[in-house]
Amino acid sequence: MDKKEILAAAKELVLAKPVAYLTTIDEDGYPYTTAVFNLRNRERYPDSSKVLEEYDNDYTTIYVSTNTSSVKVKNITKNNKVAMYYSIPEVFKGMYFKGTAEFLDDQEFKKNLWMDRWKMYYPLGPTDPDFTILKITTEYISSWYNSGKHVLRFEEK
Amino acid sequence: MDKKEILAAAKELVLAKPVAYLTTIDEDGYPYTTAVFNLRNRERYPDSSKVLEEYDNDYTTIYVSTNTSSVKVKNITKNNKVAMYYSIPEVFKGMYFKGTAEFLDDQEFKKNLWMDRWKMYYPLGPTDPDFTILKITTEYISSWYNSGKHVLRFEEK
Repeated sequence: MDKKEILAAAKELVLAKPVAYLTTIDEDGYPYTTAVFNLRNRERYPDSSKVLEEYDNDYTTIYVSTNTSSVKVKNITKNNKVAMYYSIPEVFKGMYFKGTAEFLDDQEFKKNLWMDRWKMYYPLGPTDPDFTILKITTEYISSWYNSGKHVLRFEEK
Repeated sequence: MDKKEILAAAKELVLAKPVAYLTTIDEDGYPYTTAVFNLRNRERYPDSSKVLEEYDNDYTTIYVSTNTSSVKVKNITKNNKVAMYYSIPEVFKGMYFKGTAEFLDDQEFKKNLWMDRWKMYYPLGPTDPDFTILKITTEYISSWYNSGKHVLRFEEK
């Protein structure tokens, strides 16, 4: 697969499922994985996926909502190296995104992205100090796709 | 949830799906995630899951088949800290296993575990030098289960 095909596969994987797997590095140097909402998934998140697409239509840039008080945020504060994994296990497709995470401090965007059901996580709404958006900039992707491994470094992009 | 309930949840998660997510640390210190076969899944692996259960009926000890030449094996050789994540995304259940990986050099076990369809990965069969079994010893689990976070450290087990 050439670069264009790998990026097309990235789009397919990123759109496919409402859940993805984010790994940070904990204070003891172990990887720490949690399932996170994939806000680009249109079926589960029709509104947020649209807001996200208008904000940044590069599917390889990843936005994750989480609690400011979460372990992953604590980990990223000390070490911003992360992995995100998107998978369609039924058809043996998967894609690993390697990159760095930062905290996105854009109140307008957070307000637009907000969904009411999030009140169970962030009772004070979009301005709740416990509501954080992570932005992950991808440096490298590696996919298992059509029974082969396909790799793209982003300086080549 | 008490320890017994968390271990019951671990069994439920470990048995549920044919795929799990293994993360190692790469040479640049980034987490590296791949999907791996969950050999304890009875539906997809009726024979291997049985062999595995007879070999080790502790569901929190994880066995993963992989290529000796794989990136994850290279990573583990330099850093044995790993994470395994099991998920039932449809019902928002997930479990993170933190532990250390070693290479299991048990020819008898590898022969028993062997399945013919693996010839596409290891053409020489169960003695193929590219066929490796990882054994992961769990130190800690953290689960998202019934809308709550539940943690177990294994010195408490």
